[in-house]
Amino acid sequence: MTDPTQDLLPEGLEDRLPQSAAAAARIQRAMLDVMRSHGYDRVNPPLIEFEQSMARRMDGVRTRNLFRFVDPRSLRSLALRSDITVQVGRIAATGLANAPRPMRLAYAGQVARITGDMLDPRRENLQIGAELIGSDSVAAAAEVVEVAIAALEAAGAGRISVDFTLPDLVDTLADGPLPLDAETRAAVRRELDTKDAGGLVEAGGSAYLPLLYATGPFPQAAEKLAAIDGAGVLDSRIHALRQIAERVQGRARLTLDPSERHGFEYQSWFGFTLYAEGVRGALGRGGTYRIGGTDEAATGFSLYPDDLVEMVKAKETMGRRLFLPIGHDRTAANEMRADGWRTVAALTDADDGKVLGCTHALLDGEIQPL
Amino acid sequence: MTDPTQDLLPEGLEDRLPQSAAAAARIQRAMLDVMRSHGYDRVNPPLIEFEQSMARRMDGVRTRNLFRFVDPRSLRSLALRSDITVQVGRIAATGLANAPRPMRLAYAGQVARITGDMLDPRRENLQIGAELIGSDSVAAAAEVVEVAIAALEAAGAGRISVDFTLPDLVDTLADGPLPLDAETRAAVRRELDTKDAGGLVEAGGSAYLPLLYATGPFPQAAEKLAAIDGAGVLDSRIHALRQIAERVQGRARLTLDPSERHGFEYQSWFGFTLYAEGVRGALGRGGTYRIGGTDEAATGFSLYPDDLVEMVKAKETMGRRLFLPIGHDRTAANEMRADGWRTVAALTDADDGKVLGCTHALLDGEIQPL
Repeated sequence: MTDPTQDLLPEGLEDRLPQSAAAAARIQRAMLDVMRSHGYDRVNPPLIEFEQSMARRMDGVRTRNLFRFVDPRSLRSLALRSDITVQVGRIAATGLANAPRPMRLAYAGQVARITGDMLDPRRENLQIGAELIGSDSVAAAAEVVEVAIAALEAAGAGRISVDFTLPDLVDTLADGPLPLDAETRAAVRRELDTKDAGGLVEAGGSAYLPLLYATGPFPQAAEKLAAIDGAGVLDSRIHALRQIAERVQGRARLTLDPSERHGFEYQSWFGFTLYAEGVRGALGRGGTYRIGGTDEAATGFSLYPDDLVEMVKAKETMGRRLFLPIGHDRTAANEMRADGWRTVAALTDADDGKVLGCTHALLDGEIQPL
Repeated sequence: MTDPTQDLLPEGLEDRLPQSAAAAARIQRAMLDVMRSHGYDRVNPPLIEFEQSMARRMDGVRTRNLFRFVDPRSLRSLALRSDITVQVGRIAATGLANAPRPMRLAYAGQVARITGDMLDPRRENLQIGAELIGSDSVAAAAEVVEVAIAALEAAGAGRISVDFTLPDLVDTLADGPLPLDAETRAAVRRELDTKDAGGLVEAGGSAYLPLLYATGPFPQAAEKLAAIDGAGVLDSRIHALRQIAERVQGRARLTLDPSERHGFEYQSWFGFTLYAEGVRGALGRGGTYRIGGTDEAATGFSLYPDDLVEMVKAKETMGRRLFLPIGHDRTAANEMRADGWRTVAALTDADDGKVLGCTHALLDGEIQPL
């Protein structure tokens, strides 16, 4: 007896069939080629690591979401990676600890986690990214934002948006002109996260109310943010954001949401989220951070192009295909492939080029449309 | 206190650093491009599946070597894939069950297993392959061997060897001219596997002794095999091998080891193993088989290029790199990248192009060697 559910995949996991796999491969190549052209060298960490080593570098963020299992060899607990960034941080701190800085590294691979989230129920994602190790300066941030946009452009994303944020904004203001005790600070952060004006006032953070309105298109929002900051403690930050914005002007719609912290648990002074037309959620995010363990400064971004793949896959061209009948000239076929043709060779006389998706056939030594 | 071992990876798992990752990426692209040019469409199965579904399709072979863990969501047992071929078989039997045959599919991805083997202690491998679904004919076998050789050639493998085998040879002979009862048949297979002439005679298989000598360079070994087979039950097999050999003649050294079964637990009438100069173990294997569950005929191969990557990585060129000093012309830099240059932009005046691995620098608008 056959169990009809036996071939189903676990929830949140799926196969990429040809159109989707072709789109994913094209997008991955395009993104990696852009990173490569900007001097980023690929590294490939393994799928599995010691759970302890991986969790430690994740600063405890979402470590409960790791698929974990005991290694029968070492009898230690292993984890399937859920984020390649932390693995690249480990490589920077170990195998490439002595390589010159700034060091540019890129990566691409599958990551998995126990639970997806509401916006993305997937439990496996393609993650592609770049890390600029040894610097978290404005110049590093500007380069990383530029490379991220270029990677999305090359992948075919349209109308790219970049939303800037200042992950440590509340701390900076609370340590300076708008003082808060530790308890109120936590409450203010919480209310800003939910963008709840009433809650913010109730929590004792009315001085922070203007932050809720210093959002939107970049230049205007940056001006509003500057206006909040009478003491000038944000001057260097706002100047930095403007320099980054100038670098990518015209290539993306720029917005500012200075108190946004969601997804920026690792980031220090600068964070950004990437969007594109027709793609529901964020396509990626990045920013400045410190590598877990060594505390080395770094700036980077991660792209999660699965939704972009889904959007473009229907339009993905599978290439002109040339049907080669039984007895075709093999030398000619080699030449066609070298010329960029995809060929489909008949195995029997019954094979029908058109049924097999061919657009052309090699008949009497001539390429003829089907 | 820092545990000095905390950054070590589990036994058999490793990072690919830039030279190695560049070689792996180049080899993967080259192999996939060859498969694509022969009409093979990429599919991407997930890293994880239900253990039951995966193990069933593996016919119980090496299923104990799967990394397994319970899915907290479904409370069912999951497994990390150790072989993409069985996943492609599942896709052929489900998502692509109604696609026209013969159907050509390709794949590339990481696989993992609990224990490596003596020849390869790795517990994670890159697996790249192609499956021709819907046929296990001689024409299918010849195409698959040709594509496998072309993929290795494109990846830079030198002096490729292909070793043919007939996985069901003993059964064919024992059901025909050289009868054996079930018990003796098993013993004869075992002794042939270890190539033990004395053991073979003792086991009652002296009629099978000539098989041990029908090995070596293809045309001669095929003649010896034909000589064993007075009744002609192997005629069609030997003819098939000769047709396959003719198809790839001159592109690889061809050998025959007709009773070799190791690694061919899935294969039906035809199997082959791929080797290349300078690479210790086999680079891949393939053959004809039936897809688990549906019993559909198929022919395919899997390549495991990790050893090839290790061999070529030292020679892997990391590309000319152009150092861009502070204040460089960004438009010019974009043009250089479009021309194929890899650029490395200075973040501060202290950045030294030569230290950062650059071969050239953009100085006063001119490309100058460093």
